[in-house]
Formats: sequence, C-alpha cells, structure tokens
Amino acid sequence: MTTEPEDRIDPRIERSRMVILQAAVEELALVGYGGVTIEAVAARAGVGKSTIYRHWPDKLALIADAFETFHEQMVPDLSSRPPRDAILLLLGHVAEVVVDSTFSRCIPALIEVAERDPRVREFHHRYAADRRQALVDQIARGIRDGDFRADLDPELATMALLGTIFYRRLMTPEPLHPSNAGELIDTVLGKRTVTPDGG
Amino acid sequence: MTTEPEDRIDPRIERSRMVILQAAVEELALVGYGGVTIEAVAARAGVGKSTIYRHWPDKLALIADAFETFHEQMVPDLSSRPPRDAILLLLGHVAEVVVDSTFSRCIPALIEVAERDPRVREFHHRYAADRRQALVDQIARGIRDGDFRADLDPELATMALLGTIFYRRLMTPEPLHPSNAGELIDTVLGKRTVTPDGG
Repeated sequence: MTTEPEDRIDPRIERSRMVILQAAVEELALVGYGGVTIEAVAARAGVGKSTIYRHWPDKLALIADAFETFHEQMVPDLSSRPPRDAILLLLGHVAEVVVDSTFSRCIPALIEVAERDPRVREFHHRYAADRRQALVDQIARGIRDGDFRADLDPELATMALLGTIFYRRLMTPEPLHPSNAGELIDTVLGKRTVTPDGG
Repeated sequence: MTTEPEDRIDPRIERSRMVILQAAVEELALVGYGGVTIEAVAARAGVGKSTIYRHWPDKLALIADAFETFHEQMVPDLSSRPPRDAILLLLGHVAEVVVDSTFSRCIPALIEVAERDPRVREFHHRYAADRRQALVDQIARGIRDGDFRADLDPELATMALLGTIFYRRLMTPEPLHPSNAGELIDTVLGKRTVTPDGG
C-alpha cells in the first residue's frame, strides 16, 4: 500500500477516511453514480462536507479512491504459490466480490455512467485493467513454466476467465459461485496435466 | 420468424411497425431506459401515440419486441455447417453487433435498469438466455461429434465465449474485433485437431 505520511500517521484520520470511503460506495450502490452527492456521503459518514472536500476534489476522486482502497485491502498474497493455485485464489476472490458486495452492486451503475461520461469511463477502464494485471501475470508465468498451453494468449485467456464471471453477474440470474472457479479454470486454461517427461 | 397474420399481412402496417421498433431502440440508446417515453418514440417514428399503444401495452413490451424482432432478422443460417464453423459465424455475428450497433449502445442502460427493475431484469435475463442457446447447442453438437474436448460443459464454455465479448465491450476501451472470433474459439474450445484415427 502506498502511504501518504501527512494523512495516515494519525489513526483517527485514517479511521475517518475509511468511514467516508465506505459511505461513498454505499451511496453509489444505493442511488447510482448520477445520484451520489457529497452531502449524502457526508451525512452517511457523520462528517461535514468540508472534511470530504479537504481530501478529495470531487465525487469521482472520492469514488475512485474508495475502489482503489478497498481493492488493496482485499488482494490475496500470491508470492509463493504455483500459477494455477494463484489463479484459483484470484478468481475465487473476484467471484466472491462479484457475487455479493457493495462493490458488486456498484458495477451496473459504473458501466452505465462510463458509457456517457469520459472521465468515469477512463477511470472504469483503468481500474479494470489494473485488476486484470495479476491474472495476466500468473497466466504468463504458467505458460513459461509449462503448466498451460504454449499457444495461450494471457490477455485473451484473462478476459475469458473474468468475462465469464462478469457475464454471469450482469446477464444471468445466477452469478458464478466462487466454488466453481476451478471448473472455469479447467475450461479456459485446460485441466492440470502431467507433462510428457513426467515433470 | 413467427407470423401474426392480422398484423403482418399488410406490408404498410409491417413497415410502420419496423419504423416504430427502430425508433424505440434509437431512443433507448440515446436517453437510457428510464428516459424513453412513448411520446418521444412516436415523434421519432412520425406516428401518433395511439398507433403505438394499439400494438404495445407499455414501454417494456415495445422495447422487448424491438430486441426480439431485430435479433430474428440478424441470425445467420447454421443448419448445414460443422459445429466449429457455426460457432465462428455466431460469435463473429455477436462481436459485430456488440462492437457497433444501436443494440450495443443499449446494453449498458439495460444492465443498469435490470439491476433495479424486476420486470426489465426478467426480460434481460431471458433475452440473453435465448440468444445463448444456439451457441450451447452447437458446442454440445461439437462435443458429440468429437470436435471438442469431451469434458467441456457447453453452458460454461458458452459463457466464457460470450463473456469475453461482453467484458471487452463493457470493461475495456477496445471491444473484440469480429475477426478475432477464431482466436477466442481456439482459446476456449481448443484448436482444431486431427483425431487419433485420422478422422
């Protein structure tokens, strides 16, 4: 996590910051991006508007910070895991967030506003790209290690994995259950196989 | 295409119906579902409101009919094609529609309203399920014919194929180009292979 010493040294300020960010995503999920106001977020967080404006210049900056912050808190540690296990952990995590979370309830609103507002679109696309990168990296590592087919395109395979989870959430009554992440990986990346030399 | 003799025998009535349906999807793409009014659709189509209410009880019925009708007109004929070719045709078609069409501009609005309105949600999910079915059928046929891995789940593989196209459209600046449909099929269903007995 990046640190901004002037903001984060005092635990009371950090706590107030988290309360405001949580209030922002709750408002977004409730009323959609267009309906979010700094007033309502301030009221929900129990702070004054000026407290919010002291840290964030506008609504998009506040919501973008909320998304980045809550994501940082949720990312699993992948450093010591084989690629397939790391991917299983990442996808299970995405599926959990997408099935049921305040963030999940914000996705449709974000998609709709991104269509009309270039600044939100730029944030939405960049945020999604940043979130994809860990998966792209793990698939590329798995290809290098010989765990996955050499002809896989890591970017396209990542889109197929995440695309399934988002399609299920946005276009069907039944989101992908996190426990089915393994089956999804088998479908897109192929089942775990023993290499010809037995390795 | 199903026919309703009383409505469709007269080509002038059919033509007027198509003009109204086209006006409905154009309004939807322009102002979002919440903003569509029968007045505005009537004005755009150059007809009276009563003409619209004679055929459709409300906004959702009108928009649902527009989606169904334009879809019927666009479906390629698959009857005589091998499964992989049929899937390539279907996916290329979906990618074309999703990259650039009035329908494509309606998707974010539909997703957002489906989140909040149970009737729109029911239509949105049923429409997507109906559209998926041809792909599910062709993948199941390809598995029976030995063209694809026997352990593939046709439903899950369909979600991975369509999910990639929708993810690219909704979460990235670059929709999948229809000419990349083949690469997507290779990724999810595996490359075309020669069977051990040379068949």
